[in-house]
Amino acid sequence: MLENKEINRTNLAELGEFGLIKRLTKAIKLVQKSSVKGVGDDAAVLNHKDNQTLVTTDLLIEGIHFDLSFMPLKHLGYKAVMVNLSDVYAMNGKATQITVSMAVSNRFSLEAIEDLYAGIHLACKAYQVDLVGGDTTSSTKGLLISITAIGEAKAEDIVYRNGAKTNDLLVVTGDLGAAYLGLQILEREKQVFEVNPNSQPDLDQYAYLIERQLKPEARRDIVKLFKDLKVKPTAMIDISDGLASETIHICQQSKVGCRLYEEKIPLDPQVIATCEELHLDSTTIALSGGEDYELLFTIAPSDYDKIKGNPNFTVIGHITDASLGMHLITRADQQIPLTAQGWDAFLKK
Amino acid sequence: MLENKEINRTNLAELGEFGLIKRLTKAIKLVQKSSVKGVGDDAAVLNHKDNQTLVTTDLLIEGIHFDLSFMPLKHLGYKAVMVNLSDVYAMNGKATQITVSMAVSNRFSLEAIEDLYAGIHLACKAYQVDLVGGDTTSSTKGLLISITAIGEAKAEDIVYRNGAKTNDLLVVTGDLGAAYLGLQILEREKQVFEVNPNSQPDLDQYAYLIERQLKPEARRDIVKLFKDLKVKPTAMIDISDGLASETIHICQQSKVGCRLYEEKIPLDPQVIATCEELHLDSTTIALSGGEDYELLFTIAPSDYDKIKGNPNFTVIGHITDASLGMHLITRADQQIPLTAQGWDAFLKK
Repeated sequence: MLENKEINRTNLAELGEFGLIKRLTKAIKLVQKSSVKGVGDDAAVLNHKDNQTLVTTDLLIEGIHFDLSFMPLKHLGYKAVMVNLSDVYAMNGKATQITVSMAVSNRFSLEAIEDLYAGIHLACKAYQVDLVGGDTTSSTKGLLISITAIGEAKAEDIVYRNGAKTNDLLVVTGDLGAAYLGLQILEREKQVFEVNPNSQPDLDQYAYLIERQLKPEARRDIVKLFKDLKVKPTAMIDISDGLASETIHICQQSKVGCRLYEEKIPLDPQVIATCEELHLDSTTIALSGGEDYELLFTIAPSDYDKIKGNPNFTVIGHITDASLGMHLITRADQQIPLTAQGWDAFLKK
Repeated sequence: MLENKEINRTNLAELGEFGLIKRLTKAIKLVQKSSVKGVGDDAAVLNHKDNQTLVTTDLLIEGIHFDLSFMPLKHLGYKAVMVNLSDVYAMNGKATQITVSMAVSNRFSLEAIEDLYAGIHLACKAYQVDLVGGDTTSSTKGLLISITAIGEAKAEDIVYRNGAKTNDLLVVTGDLGAAYLGLQILEREKQVFEVNPNSQPDLDQYAYLIERQLKPEARRDIVKLFKDLKVKPTAMIDISDGLASETIHICQQSKVGCRLYEEKIPLDPQVIATCEELHLDSTTIALSGGEDYELLFTIAPSDYDKIKGNPNFTVIGHITDASLGMHLITRADQQIPLTAQGWDAFLKK
């Protein structure tokens, strides 16, 4: 956080657009069979043959989606890729390629942009995804990244949001709320640092929360696990906006209702401890926090035995007839209608 | 240019992110067979079967790529799509889908964004392309649009930049320089308007230039024409940065040189007249102006008879051995090395 960013500083204006693109793309090696041609032509050429192609895109903007005062550029690059791959996995697909468009102001040096790309390359390598194209330009203010991820899947393997049926189980991977709390901790430390630049924060007790915020992992492993377990979810979505909002998406698109049990929501001990410390309600954080990039899905009751006891999965509720509505069942056995606070970009400002 | 933009104004904050997406996507109808699933899930699902998939992306930023004081939002939406489709056609492919990501500041109303989308939808309809996904968010400043276009082509039909051979002919579609001059005229009128808001500009004599700047068309017709004429170019690129820069791209990637004849460069009479009026050199404008979205390609000499006399094509030079370099041959028969001024985003500011 406190590194000297001026040690090596190459001005982007000296390098020019083509020079920058050359520097940023020289390390690219294509690993996917379906990547016929990557960067360097008018378009990338992909060959997914008998499989269907999946396409998803996300836009990350400085000051809206990230704060560079506590988000290292390398982490930002990594996270920007994860956000997109997560959408491909949420279709039960295999992510194969990404394109990266980026606008940077003159405030950034070549070394800063190379840090960002180092994170992008690291993510590509870890998830075996090829970077096959993009666009690099200047911005009048700040940094923004637009990534499009491409994936593939057999038609019969693809899981949409609209297939949930009455009596299906509602299941979530991992645990929830940590990424949002990580952001709260980082914002608190930023304020402390602004008041006293010599403060030495001890963030050990929040390590998991901060990692979930700064370096989330998309659940590629779950897609493989489904194959191994011979489970095909009936509906699936990734948790970017928060559990409540995503549950509502599945229910509305599937034209069903649900009962979601507060006591079943998986929380890490650091989430529970930090919620107590900050006087926050952990259920609210899990429902509305977002950025967990876990998968929320429904399975037929007959598949329950296949996932039972698996530490990756927590059954948090079940699907009902649409007429019964969408409800959270509290620990006190109260029934509260689910509402999507979600993440509202236009109200945040 | 002088419309009252306050007549109907719905605040984006009232509508919220999901509300905005719903409004903007409700008119979408998928027309491409390969569009299995469009907006509304984690990813779009496409099925290009035996064809290869083409992917290209472009980012347009207010204050860098467009100026809303003379670029109506509907035109901007249309142009943003053209810029991307043009890259697919430059691969000799068929454009089939786009995704649209957009960031808007609170300065914009719903009606403004709907205007932008009207242009996007118009382009999609005219070019039979499906809008299948995207991301909508707020920005701290200004408007930006990131579009990814997806296309398809048989492997054997795809034309890359790297296939030009010695003695091939260098050919361009349409005429060059008009879009850049259109921008100069619009910027001049903006300054006049700022000094005297009651001025009534007569832009009739610049109508073609302004149309080329505000409503460019991507050359889908040329891809069809190649099929009809049974011509497959050996290399191809679209002219977004200017003829010089694109010629250099083809030569460098094909490891060849070229001779490009100044007298052959196709110019519209309005380009010639306006260059005289503004004391600009029309060759420089054609070489470096950019934004023409015409196609530049090379063909084997044996294919010359197939394109001869076709009003869409102008032979402007030929390919040489790499050792002979890349040169412009002037009207005075001087040989000048081609340089890519191109469009340098980082030096513009």
